[in-house]
Amino acid sequence: MNKLAAFSLLVQDDIREVETLMRSQAQGYHPDLNAALDLILKSGGKRIRPSITMLIGRILGASHERLVIISSAIELLHTATLVHDDLIDGALLRRGMPTLNSQWSPGATVLTGDFLFARAAKLAADSNSIPVMNLFAKTLTIIVNGEITQLFTSRCIASREDYERRIFAKTASLFETSAASAALLSEASQHIVQAMNDFGRNIGMAFQMIDDILDFSGEQATLGKPVGSDLRQGLITLPALLYFEQHPEDDAAQEILSGKCVEESQRVNVLIESIRSGDSIRQARVEARKYIDQALESLAVLPASIERSALEELANYIVDRDF
Amino acid sequence: MNKLAAFSLLVQDDIREVETLMRSQAQGYHPDLNAALDLILKSGGKRIRPSITMLIGRILGASHERLVIISSAIELLHTATLVHDDLIDGALLRRGMPTLNSQWSPGATVLTGDFLFARAAKLAADSNSIPVMNLFAKTLTIIVNGEITQLFTSRCIASREDYERRIFAKTASLFETSAASAALLSEASQHIVQAMNDFGRNIGMAFQMIDDILDFSGEQATLGKPVGSDLRQGLITLPALLYFEQHPEDDAAQEILSGKCVEESQRVNVLIESIRSGDSIRQARVEARKYIDQALESLAVLPASIERSALEELANYIVDRDF
Repeated sequence: MNKLAAFSLLVQDDIREVETLMRSQAQGYHPDLNAALDLILKSGGKRIRPSITMLIGRILGASHERLVIISSAIELLHTATLVHDDLIDGALLRRGMPTLNSQWSPGATVLTGDFLFARAAKLAADSNSIPVMNLFAKTLTIIVNGEITQLFTSRCIASREDYERRIFAKTASLFETSAASAALLSEASQHIVQAMNDFGRNIGMAFQMIDDILDFSGEQATLGKPVGSDLRQGLITLPALLYFEQHPEDDAAQEILSGKCVEESQRVNVLIESIRSGDSIRQARVEARKYIDQALESLAVLPASIERSALEELANYIVDRDF
Repeated sequence: MNKLAAFSLLVQDDIREVETLMRSQAQGYHPDLNAALDLILKSGGKRIRPSITMLIGRILGASHERLVIISSAIELLHTATLVHDDLIDGALLRRGMPTLNSQWSPGATVLTGDFLFARAAKLAADSNSIPVMNLFAKTLTIIVNGEITQLFTSRCIASREDYERRIFAKTASLFETSAASAALLSEASQHIVQAMNDFGRNIGMAFQMIDDILDFSGEQATLGKPVGSDLRQGLITLPALLYFEQHPEDDAAQEILSGKCVEESQRVNVLIESIRSGDSIRQARVEARKYIDQALESLAVLPASIERSALEELANYIVDRDF
């Protein structure tokens, strides 16, 4: 938590407002939706996206109220996609908390996800900005299209291009929207909107890369799931890609590069252990660091301020974190 | 089809544009989404909502392009909710065509519904009107909250209030939005927006009542499902409510009024036959007619024109139809 101190202190009241607004979204609707929202929001998360929105918007002079509204819209949109994802994957836990689908019927879970989409769209409309509303709807399309593509694409595809497209759709697109929305609500110049867009995208790419690294380098107890769970599901992420590039002699690597999954679990264990003990984890961190460096460059368009320093710290935190 | 002639002739080119715009929404995304959209849109429907939007908007002078955009947004929103509904209900056919969930996995069906929500939201944002966007998101919330309420509420509730709330959420809210959006895009006065809102709501209420009547009075071959299928599922609609009010001596009616479902299928058959052969079908049509009469009164705020006559004809068609 120490690492988080400065930027999270600056926005902690804002984040509380964002969470309060999110929690209030079921008020006046079916009472069980309140219970669902409580359960879903309890698992929290790091709230990096709203921190970005609030900090950028404060620097650029956007209305505090509209920043809180769009931050809540973005977090609820993210939450809605997680509710449907967990249902589709049959996941029972998320961040150590029971998922909605572990407690509710599939039908109720689908509809609760839909309800969250509806409330997110309403909040986005409440931001009172056509460009923000447009961006919001475009991002939702990108995220869902990414999920559909992943569902319909064969497992065990070892391609950089595919990986980058995937993590953009899954994670970076929403970080991009968090940052760009703040600039749009500030009626900043096109140049600044673009810079903030790039800032968000680059830290989003790095954020997902680090998540993918931790899936290999972490410990089962901290991860709350087996080490290498992506690879076990046939999802090839950066550390594996780097390992394959440098170990073409590895039997399992050859098999995957030829387009086949390694199915036998003992062989998958050996491959995961090779990736963990080799150099590709470190190299993957170097690649993630490059995205952060690019993100930091984009911040140069903003005036020096404690909020800009907080954004720098947040960017560094993303790539340095080990949880 | 003859009954449809005048109003549908007036808008047939518009409806073609609306359908083309809807079909184009998967372009540039995962190719299987195109196939899904084709399948889903093939089952068509009467396209009453876009006819209302186009006719009102034309009278009030809204931009043709924006009317086409919001009509497509509303129809796609409706389609998205049907995709999830059919999945939840396990329905294999809709209007005689196979449902998406009858051919795709549950996960792919959930995500396709989400994709349609996303595209509907994008189109709504493209309408370039904050009030329309707001109305759109509010209506989505009402529809989904209605579905959740129905899922969580016991079956066999014989209450007028419950019935009216249900058909408003399920059907009339979206008709209301179709009509009000056209007025909002025309920047009509608040008085006219309200009148159009009421017009849409009242014909929507009547539309659903007639659907509920046809579920009893129709024939299995035309309905594509067993006669009285709502009642068989424990859903109490207007004809049943009227029958219960007037036949308190009926055993099955007593059972339902005391809060229990009639489970034995032979007894349900007898009850359905009693409702079919009694007077409550006719009385239900009289009630639906009252909503249409109110709707027609709301049209008085519009200048006399062939479009206004078409709206009158459309309103009468809704209550006179027998399919």
